[in-house]
Amino acid sequence: MNKMTNEMQQLLEEACELARGHLGEGRVASYIPELAKTNPANLGVCVMTKEGECFQAGDTEIPFTIQSIGKTFSLILALETGGFEETFSKVGMEPSGDSFDSIIQLEMKNWTPYNPLINCGAIATVSCIRSKTPFEDYLDLVRRLCGDPKARLSEKVYNSEKRTGDRNRAIAYLLKSDKILGGDAEEVLDLYFRFCSVLVTAKGLARYGMILANDGVDPISGERMVDARIVKTVKTLMLLCGMYDESGEFAVKIGIPSKSGVGGGIVSAAKCGMGIATYGPVLNAKGNSVGGEVILEYLSEKLGLHMFQG
Amino acid sequence: MNKMTNEMQQLLEEACELARGHLGEGRVASYIPELAKTNPANLGVCVMTKEGECFQAGDTEIPFTIQSIGKTFSLILALETGGFEETFSKVGMEPSGDSFDSIIQLEMKNWTPYNPLINCGAIATVSCIRSKTPFEDYLDLVRRLCGDPKARLSEKVYNSEKRTGDRNRAIAYLLKSDKILGGDAEEVLDLYFRFCSVLVTAKGLARYGMILANDGVDPISGERMVDARIVKTVKTLMLLCGMYDESGEFAVKIGIPSKSGVGGGIVSAAKCGMGIATYGPVLNAKGNSVGGEVILEYLSEKLGLHMFQG
Amino acid sequence: MNKMTNEMQQLLEEACELARGHLGEGRVASYIPELAKTNPANLGVCVMTKEGECFQAGDTEIPFTIQSIGKTFSLILALETGGFEETFSKVGMEPSGDSFDSIIQLEMKNWTPYNPLINCGAIATVSCIRSKTPFEDYLDLVRRLCGDPKARLSEKVYNSEKRTGDRNRAIAYLLKSDKILGGDAEEVLDLYFRFCSVLVTAKGLARYGMILANDGVDPISGERMVDARIVKTVKTLMLLCGMYDESGEFAVKIGIPSKSGVGGGIVSAAKCGMGIATYGPVLNAKGNSVGGEVILEYLSEKLGLHMFQG
Amino acid sequence: MNKMTNEMQQLLEEACELARGHLGEGRVASYIPELAKTNPANLGVCVMTKEGECFQAGDTEIPFTIQSIGKTFSLILALETGGFEETFSKVGMEPSGDSFDSIIQLEMKNWTPYNPLINCGAIATVSCIRSKTPFEDYLDLVRRLCGDPKARLSEKVYNSEKRTGDRNRAIAYLLKSDKILGGDAEEVLDLYFRFCSVLVTAKGLARYGMILANDGVDPISGERMVDARIVKTVKTLMLLCGMYDESGEFAVKIGIPSKSGVGGGIVSAAKCGMGIATYGPVLNAKGNSVGGEVILEYLSEKLGLHMFQG
Repeated sequence: MNKMTNEMQQLLEEACELARGHLGEGRVASYIPELAKTNPANLGVCVMTKEGECFQAGDTEIPFTIQSIGKTFSLILALETGGFEETFSKVGMEPSGDSFDSIIQLEMKNWTPYNPLINCGAIATVSCIRSKTPFEDYLDLVRRLCGDPKARLSEKVYNSEKRTGDRNRAIAYLLKSDKILGGDAEEVLDLYFRFCSVLVTAKGLARYGMILANDGVDPISGERMVDARIVKTVKTLMLLCGMYDESGEFAVKIGIPSKSGVGGGIVSAAKCGMGIATYGPVLNAKGNSVGGEVILEYLSEKLGLHMFQG
Repeated sequence: MNKMTNEMQQLLEEACELARGHLGEGRVASYIPELAKTNPANLGVCVMTKEGECFQAGDTEIPFTIQSIGKTFSLILALETGGFEETFSKVGMEPSGDSFDSIIQLEMKNWTPYNPLINCGAIATVSCIRSKTPFEDYLDLVRRLCGDPKARLSEKVYNSEKRTGDRNRAIAYLLKSDKILGGDAEEVLDLYFRFCSVLVTAKGLARYGMILANDGVDPISGERMVDARIVKTVKTLMLLCGMYDESGEFAVKIGIPSKSGVGGGIVSAAKCGMGIATYGPVLNAKGNSVGGEVILEYLSEKLGLHMFQG
Repeated sequence: MNKMTNEMQQLLEEACELARGHLGEGRVASYIPELAKTNPANLGVCVMTKEGECFQAGDTEIPFTIQSIGKTFSLILALETGGFEETFSKVGMEPSGDSFDSIIQLEMKNWTPYNPLINCGAIATVSCIRSKTPFEDYLDLVRRLCGDPKARLSEKVYNSEKRTGDRNRAIAYLLKSDKILGGDAEEVLDLYFRFCSVLVTAKGLARYGMILANDGVDPISGERMVDARIVKTVKTLMLLCGMYDESGEFAVKIGIPSKSGVGGGIVSAAKCGMGIATYGPVLNAKGNSVGGEVILEYLSEKLGLHMFQG
Repeated sequence: MNKMTNEMQQLLEEACELARGHLGEGRVASYIPELAKTNPANLGVCVMTKEGECFQAGDTEIPFTIQSIGKTFSLILALETGGFEETFSKVGMEPSGDSFDSIIQLEMKNWTPYNPLINCGAIATVSCIRSKTPFEDYLDLVRRLCGDPKARLSEKVYNSEKRTGDRNRAIAYLLKSDKILGGDAEEVLDLYFRFCSVLVTAKGLARYGMILANDGVDPISGERMVDARIVKTVKTLMLLCGMYDESGEFAVKIGIPSKSGVGGGIVSAAKCGMGIATYGPVLNAKGNSVGGEVILEYLSEKLGLHMFQG
């Protein structure tokens, strides 16, 4: 056991070391000033097992904004409160093979967004949440699943997103004009921007990944945290479209259901009930963490985590 | 054991029975006269386990053309003879969320086809096969993996495909004009049409699915039939884009890597080394077998075959 | 002279008569409640010659909203105040062959709208107006060129447009997110909605058409009302893209630079300094006045007004 | 008269002089080897008046291939033999605002090509020609309208086009698969490639432009060469879509119905029965002759040839 612990610890450190050599291949997100200030050298990985062990290397406790990883929490909340039928009448389940903020796909698909993990689909998903206090419920969900009561809104990022989010605003009004979005577009957008701006850590996301990997049950307490069917749906969509228009290549090479965010995080729900999260704000051209992908590819290979690995 | 056998047999019969009630929801493919002649009442399912057991219900020995299921064999052959680098320089790994013969996606993606399982990608894949006798090698591969030495070309379907395949011909010339396709377009097309027109059975495909489910090894003889990395790639792409623009919904609901063809077949590589194949020529609007999907959904639920089922 | 007067009068009445038989082929615009209330039987035509004669038949003094015809006034104002270079750096000069509110074209053209006479291009054009009181200047321009001091804002239509204009709002935010639109999106939209909601009459528009037909000079007073280069630009764009995605067919058949609006108006600048305006709120599938087109086709043929008529 | 002659001659020489200074701004077409061999310094202009005068400067008798200018002859022939109804059931009348060989537009427009002057539309137009000897009839038409019995096929260019025309071949098969193109695709393509490969001169095209400018009548002999309605249609389409995706800008600035070809020619049907043709094989990014456009802009301004010039 102790040996296994040592080995895992060593693997994570090797993975970080390897990843550090690639950080020159990308850039920190700069579409809002707050994100551009992040230290590009930040890098970390956390693994949480169903036995409750937690392995860490690098910057696993630095808070960063959840960004698109939040789309998986929105989806859980929409399915929990709005239900499957309502939600999937507003958004599809198909991967799009397209970049995260494409409009053209919308027009071609009769304005129903392809899936809940691209911007237009996530905005539609947020509008399906039936809750009196949607942001508080969302924050509560993040805190519970990440086991991190300190997860909170970054006011700076939220304000920055809100001020500069014209493309997302355009998407919301398109959805509204085509009756996909029923309520007030600005309210839905405000939630969407808040949802993106919650601060989490790699450690917290690793726990979230571990819960997903255990089909929604906390394996330590035995408590069911999320409905099993919802988890199955979320993980399938993560696998199919969790890494923007690099999802296919990621699935072929690494083969772990994962979701990335432009804040630099990636959360993964691996085999055998293992949760993994990486943090590295340097992004590649597709918007995924350069360091995170290197780490995950290394771990997938060394630990045999590809879903179709024999 | 005998009890398990009886149970499985009963499940398959229940699944067929259930599926029969849905055959009115679709139609037999009619784009070529030969396919339109098929009996819409044909329906069958075959399951093959890694222990060598074979369960069957309905029409599992009626030959039908392999159609798009052949795209997985083309991909195996291209990766075996042309290699990963060459092949994936001509075709991507991303799901497209689009129908099988879309052109618009090509123009948007700088003319690199999204993946090897849609028509344009399959044509590009065929052009990567490095073999002196590509059709013979393809037929030999189908025969070996299906364990069916009688698999052969349907001259009638092949001639019909060739005569009416103007859209595929257009795709080939587009790929040629954009340097994706290097060789002679008509030769590549001829192979593509032949590949689609090979006659297989549900029984044969179930064995193929079982080989894929066992990472390329025949579990009975212990012989490696296909390289493990190739199988991993093929299964991942089947999961992401094996069911045309219904792939996402199929993955969420049924969660088994599968590939369908407009001949009415679906091959699936399930958990625990189990291969499944269904046959039912009545197709839904997306081009997938209506009966096959009902059967697979039933089996996935009853046998817990969803990849993310706990 | 008297004889010519009689003949023209008779022609207009025949044209109206002919048009009345076609009003069943379309429908009054219904995207906002105010427009849907219009009487579908309204129909009129007014011709104004450079000699100052005014011929009328039918409903030439019923006020209706200018809608997209206002895009020509916006363009004049933008070119007058912002200049050619600035304006045409934000919007192109190419016909799009597409419907008036397409988004897909935007994404394909790197977000520069094709031309100033489709919605996205008109919104970009409005943002180029350099004026402290843009709506007053616009209203003043409409009044002067139509010779109609009573032209004024319909508050009801304006409020209705503003409340339901989500697709135009989406377009504005897309343009803003891509730096085409520099200022405040809501301010530009507010102007755009006001511009669409000004009440004019066929009689007023006929005078405007006559001024355009005389290259911007009032032939009676000899006063230059609009710069000649601006008029040349506006008329060319009217010819190429003034009738939405029916512009080409209209140019081939009728051959008079014209601009239509969903309020039911069409303004035309014909040969020999003749201005024509029609009013008929029943629209065809392309958004053009059914009655107006019948009248214009009749007049073009009878009077030989096609620009390439020998 | 003599003075006018001198003035026109001087204008043409000034225009050529001016154009020569811009030849560095583009490149000779290189998609087929035969075109790439052309001397980039070639430059010429020819003006033919309805009085029968012919003014020339530069290289007006060097033969070059007609290329897309031939699309206007195809259209005349299709309208003469197949008729308006048949032809315009296969191809639209709308400008596309798109580059000459776009496919995406086809898919968006339900596969009916936008207009007869882009590649896909021209291929559809060729298929509407009802003639036993279509190429001979085409060649005869070119010879008669250009007054050039020496116009003939360039075998080299034809073979080169045919060998490398994969994109046009793709377009033909797309049209065939969507029932726009009824006959044999390779036969239609063969005609299309032949039509593009006919050798003409600026002098010949100037005469053709003059015939178009005189509504289809040879003003010297008084003979009607082309039906007036056909000429009206052709000139309108030239104005709207004769200069690829630069048609709008060309119409606004120069305002003369014109058609260009990648062989370097531009034919124009100007006011007052004047035909103009330019030759200059250096093309801009849109595929139009750099020198030709400079010359036409100069002449339009100096001679007041813009259709909406007062």
